[in-house]
Amino acid sequence: MRTTYAVGIDVGGTRIAAGLVERKGRLVKEARTLTPHTDGPFAIVDAVIGLINEVSAGTQPAEVAGIGIGLPAQIDFLKQSVEFCTNLPLTGVDVRALVTSRIRQDVVIDNDGHCAAIGESRFGAAKGVRDFVMVTLGTGVGGALFLDGQPYRGSRGLGGEIGHIVVRIGGAPCPCGGEGHLEAYLGRPALAAAGRAAAGSYRGGGIAKLAGGDASAITAEHVVEAARAGDEAALEILADAGDVLGEALVGVVNVLNPRLIVVGGGIGEAAPEILNHAAARIDEHALAGRRDVKLVRAELGNDAGVLGAAALAFQEHDTREGLHR
Amino acid sequence: MRTTYAVGIDVGGTRIAAGLVERKGRLVKEARTLTPHTDGPFAIVDAVIGLINEVSAGTQPAEVAGIGIGLPAQIDFLKQSVEFCTNLPLTGVDVRALVTSRIRQDVVIDNDGHCAAIGESRFGAAKGVRDFVMVTLGTGVGGALFLDGQPYRGSRGLGGEIGHIVVRIGGAPCPCGGEGHLEAYLGRPALAAAGRAAAGSYRGGGIAKLAGGDASAITAEHVVEAARAGDEAALEILADAGDVLGEALVGVVNVLNPRLIVVGGGIGEAAPEILNHAAARIDEHALAGRRDVKLVRAELGNDAGVLGAAALAFQEHDTREGLHR
Repeated sequence: MRTTYAVGIDVGGTRIAAGLVERKGRLVKEARTLTPHTDGPFAIVDAVIGLINEVSAGTQPAEVAGIGIGLPAQIDFLKQSVEFCTNLPLTGVDVRALVTSRIRQDVVIDNDGHCAAIGESRFGAAKGVRDFVMVTLGTGVGGALFLDGQPYRGSRGLGGEIGHIVVRIGGAPCPCGGEGHLEAYLGRPALAAAGRAAAGSYRGGGIAKLAGGDASAITAEHVVEAARAGDEAALEILADAGDVLGEALVGVVNVLNPRLIVVGGGIGEAAPEILNHAAARIDEHALAGRRDVKLVRAELGNDAGVLGAAALAFQEHDTREGLHR
Repeated sequence: MRTTYAVGIDVGGTRIAAGLVERKGRLVKEARTLTPHTDGPFAIVDAVIGLINEVSAGTQPAEVAGIGIGLPAQIDFLKQSVEFCTNLPLTGVDVRALVTSRIRQDVVIDNDGHCAAIGESRFGAAKGVRDFVMVTLGTGVGGALFLDGQPYRGSRGLGGEIGHIVVRIGGAPCPCGGEGHLEAYLGRPALAAAGRAAAGSYRGGGIAKLAGGDASAITAEHVVEAARAGDEAALEILADAGDVLGEALVGVVNVLNPRLIVVGGGIGEAAPEILNHAAARIDEHALAGRRDVKLVRAELGNDAGVLGAAALAFQEHDTREGLHR
């Protein structure tokens, strides 16, 4: 039976968002709540179930293809298990079984980055593209691979960590414990630190002003905002970040030869300078024949996770029903 | 019909090797010739045809599944076209059609690195492994990806260039025109340069001695040979090379999460120090959950290309005949 809706859930460290989504990607109903940080995994599962009930109220169970849940965690997709979850107490928790046991629907879980990539692939910037790489620039630098028309997860489902490519051996310490990784130069903390360093110089005054004159309060957002206003020091920080991203992506392009690179995440969507500089580096340094790769902004913004989780639920449903392949 | 043999051809810059190969990978007949460097593409095609006739003499056409040809070129596998060939005059030459027109057999062409990976996958170090990365250390640093049980070639068939990952932004110039790429630190020219630099110091005397006392004549092979004899300066060069390889592979492991990394090529097979140091770096710096990746030496040596090209011919034959999938 061809179902009308799927429910997509995007569990973040701060917020959980849910949506009732039609097959073509229209978000017909939305709900969100703050992520509970007390009472462990059960409070999170309760919040997820509350949101599912809220957005699916008024639908018939038979109209709903299933529930897709994106988690900020490393997921073994085949086992549907949560292998590691840094920011929420979900490591080893069988989220799928807990939700399934209380909702009469099929449930599928995946990494939030993969969900966003599936969303962009079905409804956004990568529609119809078989081979693309998604990079999300936020507090961390994440990513996902879409190869031969499918998310590629690696042997244990842990692939896609674009932020942890080494771009400078022995370079800046990365939050992961490594050295010289992309994230060490491009995550929010790195951009904020560059903003604070610039604030100590005459040229960096514009960034400090946005932080109320308190250089120690400068965030990555202040840097991006100052750049929007044409502040030279801020523009230089973003240009440098874009150059580093571009060099990392030269390697990605040479190894994976994607058609498209989609850049999302709060920073990625707010700072076109980063994309422009990255694109110029790829154009200059990627091996011949691979430079036709396009670098574009993600289109679905905050909805990518919800839409992608719903798309995943549709896909799993259709596979079960033999509607695909 | 289930055929007994396939012919594998490995076209190199120096030599062309051919083999008559049984389904299980036994090389029943071999032949090789120097690669002709005069008379353009036709001389190369003539040499290939001569070798095919030589190794398949005495077989019946119906016993042979087809001809697989590995070329040191960037191949669009779906179009079966030679997109770029740096060292031989084959760019834009329809090698497959030229060979097919003179041999009553199905012909398939692929990049030589992919052929080697297919060979290792079917008959060598990666037998039964669905997700692995192959790295070849030689004059250049090449590679190939095997994902979900198939060679992954990227959107234009140009993927796998592990040697052109950026490991040090703004670093040493790479033969490709980029900066700080893995190949700039690990190719034969880089190892030879390190050997020559070491020869200028007291400790590097052992390497120079192998080059007949002429430091300017030192090659990568002299460095490897000196290391075999326990020379400390040579061991240090290989250790440094292994550290750089390891950091590049940290990025590969974080992005692709492979089960296995197979290291081949003349240098890769002769210098276990490089592998050991690379493995230690991965173990230390890869993200949690991905460190169980194994780093092993290729098993098929110089035969990988011929065996892989033959395996590809078997595979194409079986797909045509509907014996697979």
